[in-house]
Amino acid sequence: MSETPATLIALLHGPDQPGLVARVAGWIFARGGNILHADQHRDTEAGVFFQRIEWEPASADVAGDRPASAEVKGSGPVGSEAARSGTAAIEGEFARFAGESLGMKVRLLSSAARPRVAIFVSKADHCFHDLVLRWKAGDFPCDVVAVVGNHPDLAAVAGGYGLRFVHIPVSAATKAEAEARQLALLRELRVELVVLARYMQVLSADFLEQFGAPVINIHHSFLPAFAGGRPYHQAHARGVKLIGATAHYATRDLDEGPIIHQDVARVTHRHGVDDLVRKGRDLERSVLAQAVRWHLEGRVLVYGNKTVVFD
Amino acid sequence: MSETPATLIALLHGPDQPGLVARVAGWIFARGGNILHADQHRDTEAGVFFQRIEWEPASADVAGDRPASAEVKGSGPVGSEAARSGTAAIEGEFARFAGESLGMKVRLLSSAARPRVAIFVSKADHCFHDLVLRWKAGDFPCDVVAVVGNHPDLAAVAGGYGLRFVHIPVSAATKAEAEARQLALLRELRVELVVLARYMQVLSADFLEQFGAPVINIHHSFLPAFAGGRPYHQAHARGVKLIGATAHYATRDLDEGPIIHQDVARVTHRHGVDDLVRKGRDLERSVLAQAVRWHLEGRVLVYGNKTVVFD
Amino acid sequence: MSETPATLIALLHGPDQPGLVARVAGWIFARGGNILHADQHRDTEAGVFFQRIEWEPASADVAGDRPASAEVKGSGPVGSEAARSGTAAIEGEFARFAGESLGMKVRLLSSAARPRVAIFVSKADHCFHDLVLRWKAGDFPCDVVAVVGNHPDLAAVAGGYGLRFVHIPVSAATKAEAEARQLALLRELRVELVVLARYMQVLSADFLEQFGAPVINIHHSFLPAFAGGRPYHQAHARGVKLIGATAHYATRDLDEGPIIHQDVARVTHRHGVDDLVRKGRDLERSVLAQAVRWHLEGRVLVYGNKTVVFD
Amino acid sequence: MSETPATLIALLHGPDQPGLVARVAGWIFARGGNILHADQHRDTEAGVFFQRIEWEPASADVAGDRPASAEVKGSGPVGSEAARSGTAAIEGEFARFAGESLGMKVRLLSSAARPRVAIFVSKADHCFHDLVLRWKAGDFPCDVVAVVGNHPDLAAVAGGYGLRFVHIPVSAATKAEAEARQLALLRELRVELVVLARYMQVLSADFLEQFGAPVINIHHSFLPAFAGGRPYHQAHARGVKLIGATAHYATRDLDEGPIIHQDVARVTHRHGVDDLVRKGRDLERSVLAQAVRWHLEGRVLVYGNKTVVFD
Repeated sequence: MSETPATLIALLHGPDQPGLVARVAGWIFARGGNILHADQHRDTEAGVFFQRIEWEPASADVAGDRPASAEVKGSGPVGSEAARSGTAAIEGEFARFAGESLGMKVRLLSSAARPRVAIFVSKADHCFHDLVLRWKAGDFPCDVVAVVGNHPDLAAVAGGYGLRFVHIPVSAATKAEAEARQLALLRELRVELVVLARYMQVLSADFLEQFGAPVINIHHSFLPAFAGGRPYHQAHARGVKLIGATAHYATRDLDEGPIIHQDVARVTHRHGVDDLVRKGRDLERSVLAQAVRWHLEGRVLVYGNKTVVFD
Repeated sequence: MSETPATLIALLHGPDQPGLVARVAGWIFARGGNILHADQHRDTEAGVFFQRIEWEPASADVAGDRPASAEVKGSGPVGSEAARSGTAAIEGEFARFAGESLGMKVRLLSSAARPRVAIFVSKADHCFHDLVLRWKAGDFPCDVVAVVGNHPDLAAVAGGYGLRFVHIPVSAATKAEAEARQLALLRELRVELVVLARYMQVLSADFLEQFGAPVINIHHSFLPAFAGGRPYHQAHARGVKLIGATAHYATRDLDEGPIIHQDVARVTHRHGVDDLVRKGRDLERSVLAQAVRWHLEGRVLVYGNKTVVFD
Repeated sequence: MSETPATLIALLHGPDQPGLVARVAGWIFARGGNILHADQHRDTEAGVFFQRIEWEPASADVAGDRPASAEVKGSGPVGSEAARSGTAAIEGEFARFAGESLGMKVRLLSSAARPRVAIFVSKADHCFHDLVLRWKAGDFPCDVVAVVGNHPDLAAVAGGYGLRFVHIPVSAATKAEAEARQLALLRELRVELVVLARYMQVLSADFLEQFGAPVINIHHSFLPAFAGGRPYHQAHARGVKLIGATAHYATRDLDEGPIIHQDVARVTHRHGVDDLVRKGRDLERSVLAQAVRWHLEGRVLVYGNKTVVFD
Repeated sequence: MSETPATLIALLHGPDQPGLVARVAGWIFARGGNILHADQHRDTEAGVFFQRIEWEPASADVAGDRPASAEVKGSGPVGSEAARSGTAAIEGEFARFAGESLGMKVRLLSSAARPRVAIFVSKADHCFHDLVLRWKAGDFPCDVVAVVGNHPDLAAVAGGYGLRFVHIPVSAATKAEAEARQLALLRELRVELVVLARYMQVLSADFLEQFGAPVINIHHSFLPAFAGGRPYHQAHARGVKLIGATAHYATRDLDEGPIIHQDVARVTHRHGVDDLVRKGRDLERSVLAQAVRWHLEGRVLVYGNKTVVFD
């Protein structure tokens, strides 16, 4: 294997109660694990406890195969990847401990896992290039298994990067059928994360539910934003001095999903709409890249409509 | 006089036409003036030309008294201050030239003028302290002639700074009467700028019209903002990763006035509402101070519902 | 007591070893404590483990008086404050546990403690006003017990805030004597933190050693900085596009102490040295205030010449 | 021609004197030109006047061929491009006017010109990709005519973009010879700007002099910086809380050339050297891209060792 041993990362949250930190740490310690990082947060108003904990399991724990009967509730698509990385046994045990003994929801991932990612695009290529170049530079621990476009424009550049491009046109009349094709492809490729890289179609609530794994979107505005479309035109008309971009998980309520990251850039009266669009492109790509990176490193915990980002 | 000779600053805007820069510069040059700074902007969509031009007038121009008959249209309260600084004659001539020959609206001010400013407050003192300390440090070329509070809370600290504090309570029933008292005071003190330093009352459209001079407000949100009140609570509930503040001129449409300056601060899940309020205080005071400074230096030109800031 | 029960905050660091998180958490849990926040860091190169852990002790632990014989090694001036807050018994026990069982250095503070702070000033007042106003607004959990100036300029404003001002002039000839007077005052007032708010004298290595408690300084430059004095003049001469400020702990090596916080502001060719100085003042006060706040909240852990800031 | 008529941009600087703005504007106006933007700056200490002025020339001015005898002093490589864009006659006249009548140095460029650019690279590809993608997106008004690498690593990706890649190895023994080859190539391709996109060789003073046109470099540090190499390692060792990048014109004094742009990113104790390098890559590419863009738009005026950036 690699020289750096694989670590396990658990994201937990649930009702706060005394002793949670001690009990989680004690469980890991008793199994011979060595905690590398642990980060907690309490929402004192809501009485919710959050934890990200990363540890090196004892070597025996990562050697075995996943027993056929293991069921890891709530770990969703990450579970399948865990099986491949050989950490399934301890994952199952930890998930049972956290769920049954502590009443916590848990998401577990292995640093050795490489989630399978699909990038959805339309015509704009700035976020797409940026994601792929960072991925090729080793910044993203994942496998990009497909690029899905509702337009064929980016087929050539995807091919140039050696990526599979699948053109699935979407129109109002064919949307349901197109989403069915997308879902079939995602299932076939066992995709665990979809990144919408300026994909200009709204995914239906039905699609999101059937996919069942996270979808990260980049919104070309600050949120809260001007109502309606064309945010850079509206920003220009209002004479704002800052424009923003927001990366969030897609939910059935458009642009209302949990925010992962936001950033802004300064603009002046000298900047026309074209300049705002250009500056916006820089924002969009850096904000989306940061959100994807945090997600892949297991740093983002969703609860309600908010995120806890353990950066 | 002082060792640095007074300069004149003109803010012009009007329909774009060839030769504007040359004609303005030529007029000043022909009078023996020396242009120190000149900054232009064109809104090519709207066909509007904007200019801020600052020059040292020939010495003769600033020596004379203001002739009784001079009328400087559109220069509003600044006109009266110009009379005091002895630049009235050239101001009148320049305003006629720009208005009649070029069809431009013009605002003229002298670097020697010290606009008379009133600060409106309620109970929060952070913006108030900040403005006064910067003013005492020499950052603001103005005279603070009164502090007006709808609550008496800041009377003592205003007095500690040697400032006149006037308590004018405002209730729904007494609002019209209270605004009449405010207006009478502003007229008596010949106030040329009102700064709302977290003044928690909405000024009526009637008040703004009768006052006739600029009013700068600090809004404790980014704009566009969450609808409704308590922006920090809403920001916290939405899980935003940035909070903002916006300084703008007050207009009859609440929070819709021309934006002068905006800034943001980063927040995380660790920050509760109290932290957002505290970070917001820092934002509010720095954003308001910058807006006031730009206004006093004659760097802000309003047109429509937007500003051109020649910084 | 207050309605929010006092919490204990421990800052630990020492050689990394498996089980540290579990053992610390287990110790607290076994005593009936409830961990509110725990934040760890590992310097994997140096093999050092760092932790900030905050917990509510069981009520019995904070009720008792400090036994006369308790000795809390390494907790320095914080120890004395602990005695006053009634948390001495558990502190002594925890310090022994961490030191003897885990080989960690530990600093313990109680959220109920209010460290006694002295502010050192010269003539510039911007950082001084800022610190005092934040303190009065409740942002700093501390008691400001004295303002020490090598010039008398700020005596009146300190008095206006109700603060004791002590004028201790310093010249090359009298430096040793002046520092002796400063030390005597700090001891008499049981000062636990000195904040240098643009204090323009270098404290001797001897002074720092005898004082034995932290001293926070604000450096009016980015660090690494231009060698020599007058950083804003040098920045202007070099034509930099950003200026910075750095808050750090004072050490015997001038400007080489552990950095707590840094920030920058953008400048252009339009900004003269005076503008850089003015913008620098804003930076200095915000950077110093943030550093002091983090220190007082027990978020800064020093090791070697660096800091870990658990923000 | 294109629908947007070509504009002329003049960058002037020289001894300050009354009437400069008026005389330049008057000259353009008398020729039927329409000034679109004009931006001035005075260095009052040095008594130097700076101006960027952009205007639409009368149509006759851009129709003629360049007369064989025209000499445009000081406009360097830009002159040759001007000839190609058909604005040579008025350029020659303007340069004579500014030089002889006003005693100003002038650089003239046409918005229709597309300077010929060579990108120098070594092995790192992040700045290279970023520049090329922005160029392909239309952000840079220039022609990238060659990619020159001292290593062959980026030959394939350059080819993938359809760019000519020239491998010119450099060693201590062959440096003079390699620079001669580089110069011959730049001359052959009539290159008017070299961008060092993390090119890891120092260009000799002799090279810079013989090339005679601007060279923009990206320095992976803040400037002022730690002395010596490996800035991210040094930054990590010092425990700084911000890292920076600086784009500057290359001069014979390494890293001492006029600064065009700088930016910083926040780092914490959690970031290892690898993270600093990764964050630094983002900084480097955005700072370099902004500097190149400003240069190509004729917004950067060099004097002494500083820049005036008319943004």
